[in-house]
Order: sequence, then C-alpha cells, then structure tokens
Amino acid sequence: MLDSAPEGLELTHIVNRNVERKKVDWVPSSVTWTDDASLVLDAEAGSLAGVDVIVELAGGLEPAGTWVRKALAAGRSVVTANKKLIAYQGLELEAMAVAKGVRLLYGAAVAGGIPVIPGLEHGLAGDHVVRVEGILNGTCNYILSKMEAGADYAEVLAEAQGMGYAEADPTEDVAGYDARAKLAILMRLALRSQVHPDEIQACPITSVTAIDFSYAKDLNCTIRQIARAEKIGSHLAATVRPMLVPMASPLAWSRGTENMVITTGKYGGDVVFSGHGAGGNPTAVAVVSDLVGLAHGSCRVAIPSEPATVSTELEVPHYIRFLVDDRPGIVAGIAGALAHENINLNAILQKPGYPLDRLPFVVTVEPCKTSALKRALVEIGQMPALLEQPLDLQILEK
Amino acid sequence: MLDSAPEGLELTHIVNRNVERKKVDWVPSSVTWTDDASLVLDAEAGSLAGVDVIVELAGGLEPAGTWVRKALAAGRSVVTANKKLIAYQGLELEAMAVAKGVRLLYGAAVAGGIPVIPGLEHGLAGDHVVRVEGILNGTCNYILSKMEAGADYAEVLAEAQGMGYAEADPTEDVAGYDARAKLAILMRLALRSQVHPDEIQACPITSVTAIDFSYAKDLNCTIRQIARAEKIGSHLAATVRPMLVPMASPLAWSRGTENMVITTGKYGGDVVFSGHGAGGNPTAVAVVSDLVGLAHGSCRVAIPSEPATVSTELEVPHYIRFLVDDRPGIVAGIAGALAHENINLNAILQKPGYPLDRLPFVVTVEPCKTSALKRALVEIGQMPALLEQPLDLQILEK
Repeated sequence: MLDSAPEGLELTHIVNRNVERKKVDWVPSSVTWTDDASLVLDAEAGSLAGVDVIVELAGGLEPAGTWVRKALAAGRSVVTANKKLIAYQGLELEAMAVAKGVRLLYGAAVAGGIPVIPGLEHGLAGDHVVRVEGILNGTCNYILSKMEAGADYAEVLAEAQGMGYAEADPTEDVAGYDARAKLAILMRLALRSQVHPDEIQACPITSVTAIDFSYAKDLNCTIRQIARAEKIGSHLAATVRPMLVPMASPLAWSRGTENMVITTGKYGGDVVFSGHGAGGNPTAVAVVSDLVGLAHGSCRVAIPSEPATVSTELEVPHYIRFLVDDRPGIVAGIAGALAHENINLNAILQKPGYPLDRLPFVVTVEPCKTSALKRALVEIGQMPALLEQPLDLQILEK
Repeated sequence: MLDSAPEGLELTHIVNRNVERKKVDWVPSSVTWTDDASLVLDAEAGSLAGVDVIVELAGGLEPAGTWVRKALAAGRSVVTANKKLIAYQGLELEAMAVAKGVRLLYGAAVAGGIPVIPGLEHGLAGDHVVRVEGILNGTCNYILSKMEAGADYAEVLAEAQGMGYAEADPTEDVAGYDARAKLAILMRLALRSQVHPDEIQACPITSVTAIDFSYAKDLNCTIRQIARAEKIGSHLAATVRPMLVPMASPLAWSRGTENMVITTGKYGGDVVFSGHGAGGNPTAVAVVSDLVGLAHGSCRVAIPSEPATVSTELEVPHYIRFLVDDRPGIVAGIAGALAHENINLNAILQKPGYPLDRLPFVVTVEPCKTSALKRALVEIGQMPALLEQPLDLQILEK
C-alpha cells in the first residue's frame, strides 16, 4: 500500500481463506500465502521463526481471539483492527501482552483513519478527560445524513448495502452495537473507565422517520447516531442512540460515512477529531502506522483504567414525537403526565398537512431525569389516542 | 496541574527568573526553586543527579537553546513547548538526542492542546500526507473572527492585548512569523520535508479591512490567516497569509483563539484536528502528556524527512481588492492587464455606498499562476487612478 515499504518492516506471510483466489501480483514473491493460520501461529511447529508481529484483520471474537492469544503467548506483538475483540477482551489481551513484554496495538479499532486512539494515548494522557462523544458508525451516519437530505430509510439502507457500506443484516450498525463497542474502547482510554460494552444502552436508529427530520429542522437541529459517555462526579453515563444535534455543533457537520470524536478535557477543553473512519484505505493507514511505530520501538502509553458501572440516569432535554388519532384532550393528557413528574414543557410543535387520524406532533421538554420522563411516557403510552409508542430522542446540549 | 501526579513522575526543580516572587504553596516542599539554570544543567557540578528530564518552557532561541543542548549533551531527555527552537534548530537537536539515546519531545510546540504532533507521528505515519493546512495562530484567528463580526482591526488588537492574547509588539503573530515556524514543524512531520522557516513566504493580516470581510461574505467566504503547505509532484508550495475561506470549509468554523489543522493523505483522505491551540492549560496538557509518555517508556516515531526548497508558484484563484479614485477606463485597464497574462476574470464586484474618490471594488480571477498575476498587478499598480497597491488574497479551494 505504501509507495515504499517503511524501513524495518518486511511482510512474510499472508493468511486468508480461499487464499488462491486472493493472490495479487504486486506482493513480493518471498511472501508465503496460506489458508492455514497454524502455519504462522503454531510455535511448536517452529513456524513463528522470523515472524515478529502478527497483524489480525479477520474481525469478530473467534477465531481472531484464539489467533491473537496464540501470538501473544508465543511472545509476538499484535496489531489489530478488531474493535469487538478489543472492546470485549482487550483488558485480558493487554495483560497478556504486558506479561510477555510484547505490544498489542489497535489504532484502527476506533475511527480507522482518524488518529483518535494515538491522540488519546500520546497527546491527551496529561489531561483529565470528562466526556467523549462522537459519530462512530459510518453506516448510520450515511443513512441519517441521506435521510436529512430527504431520502427514505429503506431506500437508503438498500443503497448503502449495494455500495458495501452496510451489511446484509444491518443490525450491528443500526441497533448501535458496533458504536457501543467502539465507545467502550474510548471510555477506557479517555475516561479511564472499564465498562462491558453490553452495559451501554443502545437504541436503534430505525424508529427515526422523515417527520422527525422535518421537526428537527424547525428546532435548528439534525439527527445523528451519537455515542456519548460522560463522567459527572462519581457517576458515569454512557449511551448510543439517535439524538437531536444542534446545527451549530461540529457533530452536525459530518456527512456520509465520516466519523467524528470530540473529547472534553478539564484542562484542554474540547478537541475535535474528524475524517474517514472506515473503509480499506483509512483502516490500512492506522494499521501501517501502528506497524511503523512498532518498528521504531515505540510502545503504547498504557493508560490505567478502573472497573466502572454505567448509569442511564441523565438530566438532558428531550424531543418526543407522538403519532395520534386526533381528538380533544390529547395535549392536556400529555401535559398533565409531564407535570405530574415535574417535567417542564419547552415547546409543542404541530406542522400542518398530516391526516387527523394519523397526526404526528412533537413536544420538547427542558432537562429532566431520564427515569422521571420514562414514568411519564408509560402513563402517556396508555392514552387510547396514541397509535404507537412515542419516539423519545435526547437533545444534545452545548 | 493534574488531580494526581502521573505514576513515575516527580518534580524536583523549578527554574525561573525572580523565582522568589513566583513560589506557590501547592508545590511539594521537596522541590528546589532557583533562578540559576546551571544548578540543574551543569553536569560538572553534579547537579543533574536525580534529574532525568528537563522541561523547557522559556521559549525563544536563547538561552533556551543552550539549556536544551546542555541537557541533551548530559544524556537527559527534554520536553519543550518551544516552536521557534524546534522549527529553526529541531533537526540538530533531534540528532543530538538520538546520538545520546535520549528523547526530545515537543507535542506542545504546534497547536498546544490538540494532539496534532502525536497524531502525525503515531497515527498517520502509515499514510502519504500530501497537504497540511490550518489555523495555527490563535491571536490572528481571534482578530479576524472578531473583524468578521464587525470589529475594527485596531480596536480588536488592543482588546486582544488587554486580554493577553496578543503581545505589546504583535508582529510575530500578525506578520505570520509564529505560524510559519509551526508550519515548518508540521511540514517535517507531515510532508517529510525539511524547510527553513524563513523560506516560507509570510504575508501580514494587517492589510485586511472591514470592506474585505463584506466582499468575502458576498462570495460566501470569510477571511482567516491560513498556513498551508502542499506537495504537487516534486514541487513543494508553502505560505502563511490571510486567505478567503469558503464558509463550507471546516477552516471557516474556527472561532476565537481556536486552532485547526487539516491533513490530506493519499490513502486516509482529510483528517481534521481542532481545539484550543494555546494558553497555559492546553499547553500544559501537551507537556504533561509528553512526560507521561516518557514515563511509560514511549518514544517518538522518528519520521524521516529530507531537505526541500519551497516555491511560491501556485495555481489558485484570487480575490483582488482595489481602492481607486473613480474615472472611466479603470475596469478596462485592469481587465486588459489580466488578459495580457492570460488570466481569466471570474467576477467584478462593486458595492454601493462608498465615495467615488475612494472607491473600493473587487475582482476575482480563476486559478492562475502566482508569477503571472504578480506581473499583471505590477502593470495595474502603475495606473494613476489607484490610490494604493491592490490587496491580493488567495481563495482557498476544495
């Protein structure tokens, strides 16, 4: 990929399934192509002779995890782009690397071509980061920024699948599972908090409709899948969900498959990183950069972190969109349920042009506790006029 | 500064002029305060015993350069925020550090609290960066973003001086000398090109007026001091100057003293870094991050670079503002001089409301060679109707 190979690095083996079909002629003839990982990884077979670093690009927990463990156990450094493996098993793998005196580098695991991980390790280790938020999934950003421009969810998903931006089963992306794995890694490095990714609440972007983009625009906002974690005193909040993002926020500027990360430090303030998060070339930049670092004898700055538990209790403003069969008393009922929980209404928006028997309208509320709003929405959900459960989106402040 | 001192770091000495007046009570009593640098740096006196790292925050070439040389010669690593020293003498100092097996870290030298240097060294070493551009001087950005909002240059400069954003003699900032030192450092790390800072053409922001912001707005642009270097084949262009920046560019989003750097990689595309570039706290974040890295045994990824020469020849569009004593034939004369150099006029803008004997108007031209436009402007400059030399600003493309 590089115009010239960086000094000190030599490619010796390529392991791939159906390797014969994947051979290319620009790889030096000295390289061994194989579909047998044990040829590279089984120290007993003596095959690790001459191999110093294993680059793992298979993704997923297995067999990648077994391969990485074998490499570390044999005293080989590992460079990986595997966000899932690092999010779920990274602490254990890092401990293995330390015990063996080798290195585990994963700059490509979050926001591929954007140096967020090196930035946190080498440039922000001296700050006290209290918040990290961002757009960590290019597929969702592509879908939502196309919907902002007027496209329909199903159409743009099909288009994204056709272009290779989205998987045949898009659940990992649209449900927020991909972004929360990345957020868990960032929380370790930025907030120094160890959290199991499954403990981070993820809400899918699938319930966002064209109506919501239209109302968001009236509120001078757009809608993005936001991954966000914040330390508030001893309390740690973290979530991945579609949110209303003010147009003035850098997070609203991202288009297409772009990724963006904003860290907020007690001393250094906000730092914005943005660029191409995924795709072959940006990922390769991060992987090769890790390899160049290894060849230069650099190591990761091992940022210490501690086990933490995540709370879903937050005090933020909300956008709530209802779909009702219009009749008298609906607004009074909603306002009553909110008042009952001491939640202040901020605005009621109702755009013309919708049928009265399937009428969407929107309420925004001032910052309130998540738990209080949840109770109010349970009460509101029982009103017979409601045609579906209300869509509740947090509004990003700042 | 940190809530708790990072593991492995202990402050032993503080050297400062008039040190008695600067003592603070929150520094451990074990620390030696002195105004005598030789107490820390003179190995002969045995005073370096127990000192592993020298942090140099004095700035300027001397005596900081002598101190850094003494520290490196004595086999001590150095962390510095000194952009001038690194821009002018960094190669020599790095060679000294390598020869002594110690480290010279300067993450704070460019864009203070934004991890651009660690990002380039550890995250983008695997890309082939072809362009680096940015807003590297917070003072100029403060002045120009206030002028964009309607303030007068002299007033806002005085205000910036009052707030400590600008020096009593603002030449280093407004003439572009500060930004070009930083650009020279970025060129070494991003473009792998060694350039003497004085070879980078710097144009002052002082000729930009309220009229120019008004015309820029009509062109859907604003004006910023832009530091920009680009490899075009074997050709290397670099400059620091006020430029017209399209409102759609991330560079137009920076406000106040914010810094921003955009790198363009052949493989990873554009990466944007932004945040607080200067000030005590962001600089401290970068310095402490370098110290934490040192304590963790990390080292700089020594990116190889080569001597290069800078050209001022570029092919970009221009904004040219004239101030004339209005009379027939002016536009014909200007158009003729441009045509004579095969430069295509793009637009002629003349806003109403100015006196005819001091009439500003603007011409924009399509991308043309700098040298050709210079010849045309010399010819135009001889027209008797011109009250002052025209203001020529490059228009940032993309």
